[in-house]
Amino acid sequence: MSLIQPRTLKGFRDYLPAVMIPREQLMQTAREVFRSFGFAPIDTPTLEHLEILTGKGSDETDRQIYRFKDNGKRDVGMRFDLTVPLARFAAQHIGTLGTPFKRYHIAPVWRGENPQAGRYREFIQCDFDTIGTESVLADIEAVAVINNLLETIGFDRFTISINNRAVLTGLLDHLGLADRSVPVLRSLDKLTKIGREKTIEEMVSTAEIDSEQAEAVLQLAECSGEADTVFAKLHEITGGNEKAAQGIERLKNIYEGALASGVPSRRLRLDVSIARGLDYYTGVIFETVLDDLPAIGSVCSGGRYDNLAELYTKQHLPGIGASLGLDRLIAAMEQLNLLPTVSTPASVFVAYFDEAYRDDYLRLASNLRAAGIGTEVYPEAKKLGAQLKYADNHGFEMAIIAGGNEWNEGQCQLKLLKTKQAEQITYSHDAPSTLVDRIRQLLK
Amino acid sequence: MSLIQPRTLKGFRDYLPAVMIPREQLMQTAREVFRSFGFAPIDTPTLEHLEILTGKGSDETDRQIYRFKDNGKRDVGMRFDLTVPLARFAAQHIGTLGTPFKRYHIAPVWRGENPQAGRYREFIQCDFDTIGTESVLADIEAVAVINNLLETIGFDRFTISINNRAVLTGLLDHLGLADRSVPVLRSLDKLTKIGREKTIEEMVSTAEIDSEQAEAVLQLAECSGEADTVFAKLHEITGGNEKAAQGIERLKNIYEGALASGVPSRRLRLDVSIARGLDYYTGVIFETVLDDLPAIGSVCSGGRYDNLAELYTKQHLPGIGASLGLDRLIAAMEQLNLLPTVSTPASVFVAYFDEAYRDDYLRLASNLRAAGIGTEVYPEAKKLGAQLKYADNHGFEMAIIAGGNEWNEGQCQLKLLKTKQAEQITYSHDAPSTLVDRIRQLLK
Repeated sequence: MSLIQPRTLKGFRDYLPAVMIPREQLMQTAREVFRSFGFAPIDTPTLEHLEILTGKGSDETDRQIYRFKDNGKRDVGMRFDLTVPLARFAAQHIGTLGTPFKRYHIAPVWRGENPQAGRYREFIQCDFDTIGTESVLADIEAVAVINNLLETIGFDRFTISINNRAVLTGLLDHLGLADRSVPVLRSLDKLTKIGREKTIEEMVSTAEIDSEQAEAVLQLAECSGEADTVFAKLHEITGGNEKAAQGIERLKNIYEGALASGVPSRRLRLDVSIARGLDYYTGVIFETVLDDLPAIGSVCSGGRYDNLAELYTKQHLPGIGASLGLDRLIAAMEQLNLLPTVSTPASVFVAYFDEAYRDDYLRLASNLRAAGIGTEVYPEAKKLGAQLKYADNHGFEMAIIAGGNEWNEGQCQLKLLKTKQAEQITYSHDAPSTLVDRIRQLLK
Repeated sequence: MSLIQPRTLKGFRDYLPAVMIPREQLMQTAREVFRSFGFAPIDTPTLEHLEILTGKGSDETDRQIYRFKDNGKRDVGMRFDLTVPLARFAAQHIGTLGTPFKRYHIAPVWRGENPQAGRYREFIQCDFDTIGTESVLADIEAVAVINNLLETIGFDRFTISINNRAVLTGLLDHLGLADRSVPVLRSLDKLTKIGREKTIEEMVSTAEIDSEQAEAVLQLAECSGEADTVFAKLHEITGGNEKAAQGIERLKNIYEGALASGVPSRRLRLDVSIARGLDYYTGVIFETVLDDLPAIGSVCSGGRYDNLAELYTKQHLPGIGASLGLDRLIAAMEQLNLLPTVSTPASVFVAYFDEAYRDDYLRLASNLRAAGIGTEVYPEAKKLGAQLKYADNHGFEMAIIAGGNEWNEGQCQLKLLKTKQAEQITYSHDAPSTLVDRIRQLLK
């Protein structure tokens, strides 16, 4: 029989334990943070009627959808994000669920794009949204969630940039350029890449505004410093325009509310230049950059949108949400040495080298597990050296070694695998607490 | 613009929070139990080269695969189980991973079968396997994992039936019927459904054995009672056949090892009649039945197989594993009232009804979260009645109510939502411990 070559599809990948352990941990942390704010989990099918997926998508997204006819000759597609399924879900169930509706969704999505470095055709999205309210409290909460997410994952130095698109819209209104907001924002988005002068040039040529107007936009975008100073400057530049004033007021509320929610001021930045998701976000916008790795881009972005599910229902559903970039975060944690390099989720390894005592090894392991200590018993009574090599390779913290003598004497050896330090500890099945306490102490 | 009808595909479903919360909890419990034994998580792509999936599948599985040509004209399919991907994965990576390799995998699979009651075209599988060892210790551990899984999920009364196919094979050998094992097992599998006499009849007609031989098979299958008695009877019926004797010895080791691993004897049952997965399992076989709901069938099944990845590699990879039936368990928990009926993962609800104190509500919530208490703030300053109705509907345990007076006096009201009992508690942002302690006490 000829063998089938074992291989994954181009653009797809296997997750081996050393990579999957921190991914799973990250997802679990995200769940816990979402839950602590009352966001509830949902899930939706991988496959949707194709018309649901292509409803609003751009040509580019449309091309990327994995699509086919199923056995029932239905046109179906694999979801390419979690936002379209959320919109369909909300349209279908909001009557049952009521508003406000707060959900999180952590699930894979698929895009048949040409894979680039670090990008795959299958990847996890990790989204949270509050639907059915325009309250600024939901905006504030989104900032607090982002802060707690990154903090709980283990980051300390990061910056959440906050914008409210209404401020710039108000300025354009004030300048009599209300209809140019899209090209202006598109140019503005390039500010950090192409620099001040080129941004002004591009604005003048593509948005058809004069250089003085472009200068005002740039001044607005460049407002920075102490929050109070920024708010004053924004008011000044927008010349009392009412829309802008309201936008600034909301931004101020978000800023103050975030502080009240425990977000340190050093992590907050007001930045009127950020403009992501032009066709989608309508109010506040967030981006989050790791201070030590700004080059990897935003690791958590989102914003407020006007009407989530307009393709599927007449019910007006405004909302706010953001998305945690799991893959970017993992890459960042790797670069910053924040990732454990183990391929076992258990801490204690029990060597098994005297078959006559098999049930003793099992009982010992069971006692440790009952005390909440993850414990693996090597399955074969091989030579100790081979077993300890396995334990080392997998990254166990410590090994327990006991042969016939030790079992008879009510002893075992506890060995720290990194330092090779070993100690004898009394142990009996009926009184495992000396060993348990010592292991707990060492694991701290 | 005409609306697109929001609907899911036939055979697929959305998971709303009330259903998703316990599902997520169950998956998390499973992860924790797997990890406590040193099983490590992996993940594999949803899509595989079609030839990988169709390699060994039966005609029936083949028909059920969601398959299509991707944009690169490759024949691809969505995985229909986690075993085929594991085999491919092991063939591809075992050189890096080494053996023994212990993994768990919790992920959706897809089958385009005609959906029946309670069965869907997309469902989660939850598998664990130990690959690369024939040691009985791995068999024992599988029993311990099943026990700890169900116990940690919250079940007390369940029975893990254990068989070793070698025992029956040995008997057939002894009777000179070594080549009839498949039809004999197939008939035997119907014992509980069609009864003793019909089973014998079927064996005689389909396996072409005589009624005395069938009687011996039935006697073997019906061995029950105290473990020691069963082992003695099995030896007697198999008449000293060596293969059977070895099989019985292994069964005995598994039984004793399971006891040593903390599995109570009342949950263990030796049952030579169970015969699942005829074409796949070759040694020990498990089934797990909830004592209070036997009708729903086995909630965790598995067994030992000879060679996992023979289609993809020449490396011999024996293994043992089992699969937790998440959907069945959820259905069972619902029937046994073991499921919480909430649609929020947070316990505390903070009513928000005085906008002037918005940041105080936020700070209070942030303080509770910092103490590990899940807390949701209602996003709009609506009437209290509407807010409490929302809190009731979602199943929060308690609500905190504070207006201007309370804030000024350093007080808040804590209301238990089920009993409507309310109490005044002192609270200030700088000293939240009185409130925190009281909430913790009430949540216990």
